[in-house]
Amino acid sequence: MGHKVKLDFLTTVSPKYAREIIDSYVTPLGFESLSIKSCLGRVLASDLISPEDLPYFDRSLVDGYAMRSKDSQGASETNPLVLWKKGSVRVGELPKISVSEGECVYVSTGAYVPSGADSVIMQEFTREMGDVVEIMKPVYKGENIVRMGEDIKKGDIIFKKGKRITVHDIGIFAALGLTKIPVFKKPKVAIISTGDEIVSPDEKAGSGKIRDINGYLLDGLFTKLGGETVTPGIAKDEIEDVVNKLSLVKDCDIFCVSGGSSKGERDVIAKALEKSGGRILFHGVNIRPGKPFLFGLIWDKPFFGLPGHPLSCLIVTYRFVVPFFLKVAGCSETSPKTLKGVLITNVPSSQGIEEYVNVRIIPKGREIFVEPIFAKSAVISVLTFSCGYIVVDENREGYEKGEEVDVYFYES
Amino acid sequence: MGHKVKLDFLTTVSPKYAREIIDSYVTPLGFESLSIKSCLGRVLASDLISPEDLPYFDRSLVDGYAMRSKDSQGASETNPLVLWKKGSVRVGELPKISVSEGECVYVSTGAYVPSGADSVIMQEFTREMGDVVEIMKPVYKGENIVRMGEDIKKGDIIFKKGKRITVHDIGIFAALGLTKIPVFKKPKVAIISTGDEIVSPDEKAGSGKIRDINGYLLDGLFTKLGGETVTPGIAKDEIEDVVNKLSLVKDCDIFCVSGGSSKGERDVIAKALEKSGGRILFHGVNIRPGKPFLFGLIWDKPFFGLPGHPLSCLIVTYRFVVPFFLKVAGCSETSPKTLKGVLITNVPSSQGIEEYVNVRIIPKGREIFVEPIFAKSAVISVLTFSCGYIVVDENREGYEKGEEVDVYFYES
Repeated sequence: MGHKVKLDFLTTVSPKYAREIIDSYVTPLGFESLSIKSCLGRVLASDLISPEDLPYFDRSLVDGYAMRSKDSQGASETNPLVLWKKGSVRVGELPKISVSEGECVYVSTGAYVPSGADSVIMQEFTREMGDVVEIMKPVYKGENIVRMGEDIKKGDIIFKKGKRITVHDIGIFAALGLTKIPVFKKPKVAIISTGDEIVSPDEKAGSGKIRDINGYLLDGLFTKLGGETVTPGIAKDEIEDVVNKLSLVKDCDIFCVSGGSSKGERDVIAKALEKSGGRILFHGVNIRPGKPFLFGLIWDKPFFGLPGHPLSCLIVTYRFVVPFFLKVAGCSETSPKTLKGVLITNVPSSQGIEEYVNVRIIPKGREIFVEPIFAKSAVISVLTFSCGYIVVDENREGYEKGEEVDVYFYES
Repeated sequence: MGHKVKLDFLTTVSPKYAREIIDSYVTPLGFESLSIKSCLGRVLASDLISPEDLPYFDRSLVDGYAMRSKDSQGASETNPLVLWKKGSVRVGELPKISVSEGECVYVSTGAYVPSGADSVIMQEFTREMGDVVEIMKPVYKGENIVRMGEDIKKGDIIFKKGKRITVHDIGIFAALGLTKIPVFKKPKVAIISTGDEIVSPDEKAGSGKIRDINGYLLDGLFTKLGGETVTPGIAKDEIEDVVNKLSLVKDCDIFCVSGGSSKGERDVIAKALEKSGGRILFHGVNIRPGKPFLFGLIWDKPFFGLPGHPLSCLIVTYRFVVPFFLKVAGCSETSPKTLKGVLITNVPSSQGIEEYVNVRIIPKGREIFVEPIFAKSAVISVLTFSCGYIVVDENREGYEKGEEVDVYFYES
């Protein structure tokens, strides 16, 4: 699979082939067990099976009288029926009494409905007079009761492995007493920006120097997506420096190195990868932007050589690295959010190359319009006003105004 | 404004009035300054003004020759024009040479374009032969250059106060050297569940006891929204216990107490609030679910008395507490995400009450269909399959199948 790096030209592979190669290197990470309060946003490492019935017992939904529905037949305001009040059950209590024919028991909202009763009549439709209660309307079987197990049954699979844990899921965990949640470990992502011209954001730019953007974009992105990021610093365009920075973060699960991967005098990433004992699986993909995109293995871990231009770096990352990262993170949902919309201008492109174009969306009533943003790749303010990108298939020479396209959303 | 709590019935206010009262108690929190790597998801506490031009200097977008566009007029493959190669500028270097008529300077992608040049011709359209370079096509002024300040100008307002910081924003901060970011402090939210029947998720439920769900839902929700949560424990349905739990978290900015706020024997929240020296601003809102919703002040801080049923608690929280929380957190965007869709069944409701109905959405092509989920309020599995809710206006008796409605989304 590995081929020698050619410095003079890039032999490109198709984006489909690139994705297949990348996907063949997904290796799942281990598990850890987290408390219910620290698992928000993490990814379930196994199916969760309900250990209990929910509700745990027949509960009253109202303040009223637990009774047998039969005993209410024919009751009305003008012709109330009379039941013996046998006692009451407060919320939090286990009933010590049961309900027989002609009897009722006062229950509060949420209280355990005593055995024998099959319904609860709301207090509003009764009149309590000493030891007896007048029933002024009929109730049906099950009225105002939520039955044990009606909500969730013991043994039900309540969540599937690979689900990202939401706020609402945590409510279900709490209800079922699931306080230790098995989640996948966070993938550890090494992020290195390379380039002689790159300085840290706290240094002065100008005089040919520019500040590191990719390192911060990727750090934010993989943090947001649930990764742990490790940033050993900016590397010079020197093989030794890149090799050295990589060796500082050997224990990572995924390596992202941006810059220095295009053809020409600066092709140090490929050489640094090989010098570190890694190998290249492809170098160059038939896409725009991002043609010099490189994928390989280092210490048997996936290694991504990303473009130096921030917009190109980001789009290649969203398109190729993020779905892979999410698979490694154990997520069952790895595709970006998409939305269909109608183009408001033509999008020219060349046949034979898969092209990505930043867009913004303009909702108008129930229609979604899509506006392509054509910008020089160095113009990073595009980051703030594009919400995603569209893909022009390699078999097409662009799209025409009015065509429907899929918008792939960025994280925000 | 404050009125005496009445235990026998609730005098309800309109939801509009409730929101106005609540909103009148928004008090902004202080600022803190965070490093660029820890500000993701936080809320900007001031407008951010660009301290620099971006790019910092005229940059080449390609590998090629910086030159005067005039000097390329008439050039073609068959009739190339010849320029003197004066030297080269590598990325990261400040050029020591300039370009005059008939001259060119080799520049790498990202390099500083030397003064005198107004364009860069791609290497592909040139032939270098010793000290001279053949130009094989004309270039236009500005071609392959991104000008100093073309992207962002010094003094531009790049972000507005109140914006939640995204991954992409961090890229812009990095580019502009903004490494200390002013953000609003996180609102500190006290969360207390009350009820004699409530036990912690790590305790056994059943025999009348149920596990705390609200505490965990609210903890997850306000954490997700960027708050700091404080949970002093579950309180019994006793005024003293609620007073005691509240006194443990006096330093919070917002108080959320669920359960025990409905009419009847368990109305301890209102009394605990008054006993703590607080006051009630309204108790009872014309909404379903959530009618016994209470709002007041404790230690001059906002106090929310929320329903005990998890679904009711959550919907009232989304509807009334979350927008308030987001205002306190400094967010300029405080409305929930919404989407229009078409109802697939009738939604009955009573006039004179604002009703909230859980829904799920079913996208079909470019149409969005909305399915109401009618469930007993105790059935919490609804949490996992509803994506939001719809609002039935108090002036309407429900909606009919086929009507267009707004879906208000839950956090996920």
